[in-house]
Amino acid sequence: MITQEHPKAVIVIFGATGDLAKRKLFPSIYRLVQNEKIGNDFAVVGVGRRPWTNDEFRSNVSDSIQTAMKESKNLDNFTSHFHYHPFDVTNPSSYLELNTLLNELDGTYQTEGNRIFFLAMAPEFFGTIAQNLKIQGLTDTNGWSRIVIEKPFGHDHPSAQKLNQEIREAFNEDQIYRIDHYLGKEMVQNIEVIRFSNALFEPLWNNRYIANIQVTSSEVLGVEDRGRYYENSGALRDMLQNHMLQMVALLAMEPPIKLTTNEIRSEKVKVLRALRAISEDEVSDYFVRGQYTSGQLDEQQLIGYREENNVADESQTETYVAGKLLIDNFRWAGVPFYIRTGKRMAAKSTKIIVQFKDIPMNLYYKKGEQVAPNLLIINIQPDEGVTLQLNVKKDGDAGDSKPVKFDLSSNFLDGLNTPEAYEKLIYDCLRGDATNFTHWDEVALSWKFVDPISQAWTKGKAGLATYPAGSMGPKEADELLEEDGNEWWPVY
Amino acid sequence: MITQEHPKAVIVIFGATGDLAKRKLFPSIYRLVQNEKIGNDFAVVGVGRRPWTNDEFRSNVSDSIQTAMKESKNLDNFTSHFHYHPFDVTNPSSYLELNTLLNELDGTYQTEGNRIFFLAMAPEFFGTIAQNLKIQGLTDTNGWSRIVIEKPFGHDHPSAQKLNQEIREAFNEDQIYRIDHYLGKEMVQNIEVIRFSNALFEPLWNNRYIANIQVTSSEVLGVEDRGRYYENSGALRDMLQNHMLQMVALLAMEPPIKLTTNEIRSEKVKVLRALRAISEDEVSDYFVRGQYTSGQLDEQQLIGYREENNVADESQTETYVAGKLLIDNFRWAGVPFYIRTGKRMAAKSTKIIVQFKDIPMNLYYKKGEQVAPNLLIINIQPDEGVTLQLNVKKDGDAGDSKPVKFDLSSNFLDGLNTPEAYEKLIYDCLRGDATNFTHWDEVALSWKFVDPISQAWTKGKAGLATYPAGSMGPKEADELLEEDGNEWWPVY
Repeated sequence: MITQEHPKAVIVIFGATGDLAKRKLFPSIYRLVQNEKIGNDFAVVGVGRRPWTNDEFRSNVSDSIQTAMKESKNLDNFTSHFHYHPFDVTNPSSYLELNTLLNELDGTYQTEGNRIFFLAMAPEFFGTIAQNLKIQGLTDTNGWSRIVIEKPFGHDHPSAQKLNQEIREAFNEDQIYRIDHYLGKEMVQNIEVIRFSNALFEPLWNNRYIANIQVTSSEVLGVEDRGRYYENSGALRDMLQNHMLQMVALLAMEPPIKLTTNEIRSEKVKVLRALRAISEDEVSDYFVRGQYTSGQLDEQQLIGYREENNVADESQTETYVAGKLLIDNFRWAGVPFYIRTGKRMAAKSTKIIVQFKDIPMNLYYKKGEQVAPNLLIINIQPDEGVTLQLNVKKDGDAGDSKPVKFDLSSNFLDGLNTPEAYEKLIYDCLRGDATNFTHWDEVALSWKFVDPISQAWTKGKAGLATYPAGSMGPKEADELLEEDGNEWWPVY
Repeated sequence: MITQEHPKAVIVIFGATGDLAKRKLFPSIYRLVQNEKIGNDFAVVGVGRRPWTNDEFRSNVSDSIQTAMKESKNLDNFTSHFHYHPFDVTNPSSYLELNTLLNELDGTYQTEGNRIFFLAMAPEFFGTIAQNLKIQGLTDTNGWSRIVIEKPFGHDHPSAQKLNQEIREAFNEDQIYRIDHYLGKEMVQNIEVIRFSNALFEPLWNNRYIANIQVTSSEVLGVEDRGRYYENSGALRDMLQNHMLQMVALLAMEPPIKLTTNEIRSEKVKVLRALRAISEDEVSDYFVRGQYTSGQLDEQQLIGYREENNVADESQTETYVAGKLLIDNFRWAGVPFYIRTGKRMAAKSTKIIVQFKDIPMNLYYKKGEQVAPNLLIINIQPDEGVTLQLNVKKDGDAGDSKPVKFDLSSNFLDGLNTPEAYEKLIYDCLRGDATNFTHWDEVALSWKFVDPISQAWTKGKAGLATYPAGSMGPKEADELLEEDGNEWWPVY
């Protein structure tokens, strides 16, 4: 796969009238043009059921840019690259018409037959679309064709496998770009650099020196208007199976031979294979699920999950999940990876905290004081950054230590306009770099790990804990760590 | 030795009309009172040749405090504890009169016979004073007696040994407090805490992970009005034999069994014993001496050392010294400790830089780029702090790394009024804590290491390099590191 620095392509967005396109995709393409990552040889075709005109579509794109960006210029020229095509995903003639348009745009924009099909829509049509693109000849061009697929990729291993087979009938694995937008985040991509370019961390990155690793992704929002979707998903499928396990894989993988897509994927897959499988009967020893009840945050009263729209009165859906993962290999044996994610928590925060083991002997035991453990904190969102908690001397004469935080100094934070996840991921796809996308092997292993957990819950083999909206989760999640003598470090 | 939290004592300052007393000692005692480290049960007796009255002395003390402190209050009450006693150090009756005064003050201030004799004066009388204090009975009290001795402690090993014998006739080793004011500095004391309370550094603190350690202490000032003293001293005796070697010992020592005076000293002594001795003929392989010539700093023209007052036209005195030390033990074999100190350099800066070894393999070799080594930087003066230089991801899409600095966050720097070195050292002496003073064994080993170097220079066995005033030293000092494939890291 050739990497093009100024790639040319027609990008077809399925679900172009939807939320993701408006909030993320249009502004990301705009920034790629502004930052001269792509030139004038591109076009975007929006397809959707609504009978929009090009003008309506362009005005929608224009709104999107103006909402997302502080400044916007040359909007007319930019939106002139956008075309709308009313579409019925189940009607073969829709595909034929689309192909005619694409061939036409290929000539207009000199895009050399390169096509990205971006599926930003409900997952039930992923297979249908992929197969029709092939059957109706849309993938048969002089250039390359790639398909980008949003989550969810199935809702368990069998359904994911079925979906994958459908897509694979039309596309090869190396044409398939499964989005996990966490992999596009600047600080998630930094995990690799922090680990492999610092002599200070490399020798310590194992079970001799690391006590545990905590990955938290908490949201303040509830389910909002997504109750219908969320009732069939829950935190386990919506967050843990994909984003959380991907972060664990990046944290735990062996150093790859080279920083190529295949070598990195191969190491991530090895981590997922080494994850200790949890049987249905053991789930409650390793996982806690929770659901928010009514509560309060910043003096605002919040309703419970079961009171939300489109949520069943007796819903058993988890809005929170915490788990203890064990990676049974030489590097990580005995080091728990604690992960938790939930909605309606006390703060929006995605953070990785690496807790190093205690020093071999505490010379600073005077007055019964303990020496705080060293922490490496990777702040993924909302603030980006890296913090180290180390110990230094307390002011004054006593020979005591105190923990203090070392932050990245401002020369790092100057680069405040780090690209948005989608900007990077679209650019990666345009260049044919699949490193920050999820390979089928990873999807399959993640579902295989997660399926027994959701099955145990469906069968009622483990209780559903509750937590007040605006809190950091159920007390059962604290107890999960207390059993190991550990505790969750604060994330906000 | 009992540690008293609110110690009581009479402090006798020899050289009370001198510069050190005025700039450092009086303000330090004032701060100890302000900070309630000592109460009202103390007195200070200034002795000197000048025929001052108590009032003149107190007014001098008062001036000193007002110059040193932003705010001063209760000055009259504070200075009422100060008494002046005209004194001839060679006249026995001076001692007898002083003893009468001390006994009287003992009653007045309830100081329980505790006495500190602080020798803040020219070193030629150290022996005489110590012996007379004993012979005339000033050390024969119901409380404790301690003697505090300023540098220089001899000018080579034989003279230091002779001085020590004279003092030891009157005081035991545990009554002798040899000042190395660097040991009173907050960040020098922090070396121990940083090393022994952080799991992140402890496993890496050896020759497997550290490439080299650089200790710089540079001054902007020239010799000023101290030409006469400096001509007989030079940078080697004035700075390296004491301050620089003490910092090296703290950096290199094994973890002590306990953080007690004796255990720490014992480990520091072991480092000095493991220092690879340099014979006269090898000196130029390990050390560079330099002398400043005329130059320029901040658009100010500066004269050369030989043009300074009381300096010989053909002076061979070094105003700069750089050296490579090797510590031949299991922990440090093969790790150079580079040290340098000088006057009339480009910046005032005392800094320790620990350079960690490169990562085992550079995965970020694209475009011929190198990964910067990790650095731990301990800033001793003028700014206090700790900085880590680590690598993180460069902004944007390329998978490159860039070095960035992590600084202690502001919650550490809140404690801006960290005590001055002398404040801590006087307090330590009052409490009988000798940890931050130099034991005779350390003095002796330091001189034994340094003597062949100064002898080689006296005999002209190694050249005297020059450097322009306002620069970072002679090019020969850069070459010393280049031979090892290293370079001095910037210190300002």
